Amino acid sequence: MTLNPADDAFAEMVQARFPADTLRRTEARHREEPRGRWTGNAGWLALPRNTDEAAELVALCAKARVGLVPYGGGTGLVGGQVSQDGPAPLLIATDRMTKIRALYPEENVAIVEAGAILADVQSAAQEADRLFALSLASEGSARVGGLLSTNAGGVNVLRYGNARDQVLGLEAVLPDGTIWHGLKRLRKDNTGYDLRGLLIGAEGTLGLITAAALKLQPRPHSNATALLMVPSPKIALSLLALARAQLGENISAFELLHRTGFDFLAETLPEIRQPWQSPPEWCVLIELGLPRGLDPQASLELLFEEAVSAGLVTDGLIAQSHQQAAEFWALRENFPQANRKIGSVSSHDISLPLGCIPDFIEKAGPALARLGEWRINCFGHLGDGNLHYNVFPVPGKSRDDHVTEREQIKTLVHDLAHEMGGSVSAEHGIGRLKVGDLQKYGDPAKLAAMRAIKQALDPDGIMNPGAVLPATG
Amino acid sequence: MTLNPADDAFAEMVQARFPADTLRRTEARHREEPRGRWTGNAGWLALPRNTDEAAELVALCAKARVGLVPYGGGTGLVGGQVSQDGPAPLLIATDRMTKIRALYPEENVAIVEAGAILADVQSAAQEADRLFALSLASEGSARVGGLLSTNAGGVNVLRYGNARDQVLGLEAVLPDGTIWHGLKRLRKDNTGYDLRGLLIGAEGTLGLITAAALKLQPRPHSNATALLMVPSPKIALSLLALARAQLGENISAFELLHRTGFDFLAETLPEIRQPWQSPPEWCVLIELGLPRGLDPQASLELLFEEAVSAGLVTDGLIAQSHQQAAEFWALRENFPQANRKIGSVSSHDISLPLGCIPDFIEKAGPALARLGEWRINCFGHLGDGNLHYNVFPVPGKSRDDHVTEREQIKTLVHDLAHEMGGSVSAEHGIGRLKVGDLQKYGDPAKLAAMRAIKQALDPDGIMNPGAVLPATG
Repeated sequence: MTLNPADDAFAEMVQARFPADTLRRTEARHREEPRGRWTGNAGWLALPRNTDEAAELVALCAKARVGLVPYGGGTGLVGGQVSQDGPAPLLIATDRMTKIRALYPEENVAIVEAGAILADVQSAAQEADRLFALSLASEGSARVGGLLSTNAGGVNVLRYGNARDQVLGLEAVLPDGTIWHGLKRLRKDNTGYDLRGLLIGAEGTLGLITAAALKLQPRPHSNATALLMVPSPKIALSLLALARAQLGENISAFELLHRTGFDFLAETLPEIRQPWQSPPEWCVLIELGLPRGLDPQASLELLFEEAVSAGLVTDGLIAQSHQQAAEFWALRENFPQANRKIGSVSSHDISLPLGCIPDFIEKAGPALARLGEWRINCFGHLGDGNLHYNVFPVPGKSRDDHVTEREQIKTLVHDLAHEMGGSVSAEHGIGRLKVGDLQKYGDPAKLAAMRAIKQALDPDGIMNPGAVLPATG
Repeated sequence: MTLNPADDAFAEMVQARFPADTLRRTEARHREEPRGRWTGNAGWLALPRNTDEAAELVALCAKARVGLVPYGGGTGLVGGQVSQDGPAPLLIATDRMTKIRALYPEENVAIVEAGAILADVQSAAQEADRLFALSLASEGSARVGGLLSTNAGGVNVLRYGNARDQVLGLEAVLPDGTIWHGLKRLRKDNTGYDLRGLLIGAEGTLGLITAAALKLQPRPHSNATALLMVPSPKIALSLLALARAQLGENISAFELLHRTGFDFLAETLPEIRQPWQSPPEWCVLIELGLPRGLDPQASLELLFEEAVSAGLVTDGLIAQSHQQAAEFWALRENFPQANRKIGSVSSHDISLPLGCIPDFIEKAGPALARLGEWRINCFGHLGDGNLHYNVFPVPGKSRDDHVTEREQIKTLVHDLAHEMGGSVSAEHGIGRLKVGDLQKYGDPAKLAAMRAIKQALDPDGIMNPGAVLPATG
């Protein structure tokens, strides 16, 4: 049975049960897929003020068999938040549920509503002398509910894990409108199936996350940042092994960067100062977060010296101040913006077993060259095996000149990653953009289990229809 | 519809399809619930040699509607591995699937079969200069499949997380006999629902884990161990906060120990040397695992000095050698054995929000005193909020004198933990022993979701019937 649309009559019926201004017509931004692949078809947006209102909205959708799309900060890169075809769903946005309900510094826990913006959670933790470890480029607008629903990654996964690892408990509205009160502040709780882990990463297809009990971390006593030039990705991995042997978990980030990224920065954002005349072919941005008793400069210098004598590093820049560290990070953080200005033909968020990364890079370049001439910006979270392997036109050409090759490029990159035991979505999720990829590359037994779980928890398929799994309605 | 029993005719039919000696009659140990609460009713045991054989066994059970119980090392404390009433199930034991299939030191990954014994995995990791971080008292006999199925905890959860956090990928046989090939060596893989996390902790009720891709860790450069005497559990928590502020994640274990435990050791295991004339009322066993550049003795001494001046620690013993460190740990590790020799009236594996622990201890003692006279051994993984709060008879009495109070005691402790936002099973799981507790204390929406998931993945209820959820057959 197909779903019913969230049309004006439905919106009127819903609005009548809530305070004024709970429903609005969607704005253009709610219907925009960030890369312009399609336009969303949702006409109405609900803005609940609290969990009870959210639950009542879900229950009304369930009763009327109307689809709904949870909407957070709108920063998702795979269209999980932008509906597509089929009957128009109701967007349920968390803009009004932004409270940090409680903070327990002595427990390293914060209870946060789904609409809280990541940067605000980070600030609240910092004010309590704690760290909330999730960190990524869109942290100024991404909201907690979306970050958890997509199991977001970012730059600190190497040390602290992904979003799922930052969550002790959840509060969520399940597809029938019941509220799961699971905001436990417990490090250990083996009482039944891991519903927490299941809803995290389900991209709103199994429930609507309304709040979370988040893990905080002790703040490192000091930080140290360096750009280390490496001969190749393979040797960057040896450098990572050396750094971990010396410093264990005290490495917060280990980002691989390629010259193409710096060239793009120079071309599109020339106001960003680069710390060299000519960028290195490969370098690593390393960030240490150290306990008391370890001198940050000395720790980096020791690593640098041993790495140089082992032939792992050819040159390096150790940040001499917080400002210089921020400048190094600004280079990395502006890579996505520069990429957008150049305009990729095809972008890929892949992960690989660490040991396969050099082989992947060696094979993918020549294979792509057989399809045409490209500039490849391959960068990413090397410590997690996560590469943003993005393919751009050569100067003088634009992405629109390559519409026909896009699908071929994507297939080539995804096929190769898959063959090597990798993933075609490391941190961005499936959304609507990669539904076909999941069907193609996913393990059949896992896909069958996913369909069974979806059918069991959301038999009418109202939760984010068409995301992750093909819509059944 | 009820299940069919794994009777002799079924066993004969199954054996005919496999190499000789795949099926055996169960031994007494397979039917023994460790605390003697009941006797298992399974008559036949299957010993598959590999995943394909395991899958065929599950498929045959599914076809015949015969229940099956996955059996690992048999060390579970809640009877998840010991069947109870209803038609006799087939035990499927992993004794023959013990291979470490592959070890990737440069990736910090090991691929291990479900029957591998934890201590063997630890040794293999150590030989590769890595650490497999799961560590608990039964590590000499517990097997990986059971450890993952119960999401085991142990002494290093504070630093490295529980079993679920140690797993990158799984291979498992699903209830219809299909194999999920999910042995990915990826740190990031956002391609669909977290089936990995769902099977881990499901205690064999959703599938049979056959192998896992386990995370390894860099080995700390040095370790340091101390026993620090603290005035109270509340102040032990302040000591933990101080230690984390100084040393961040470099604290591997933080165990709270009470005098009663040392008294029990002296009473039942007098050959174990204790490092004092008279044990302290409360002390903390702390273990640091440090990066290069931090001197272990100096780090502990600095912590000790600051803790003393802040009034958090009254005295302490810093291990001066590996042997002394091992002796300190032997005290802690023999607590369970001494407890068994004394014989508890009621044992509890609870967790609490860290900040609620002092309040819990203050309330539970007097409340229990109203039911009679007891000796309470309250110890556990304080950093995780996990207390083993065990109630014993006073000298001259035995557990058998208190059969009538057992249920009252358990209810009192569990009610109090639950009221304070705690869990009635921190790390041991639900098994068969706590099925009623989960029904009583579990969130109704979560329980409904669990039932729906169980029904969806295992519609005939053949997987470990009667564990976690009440049997429906």
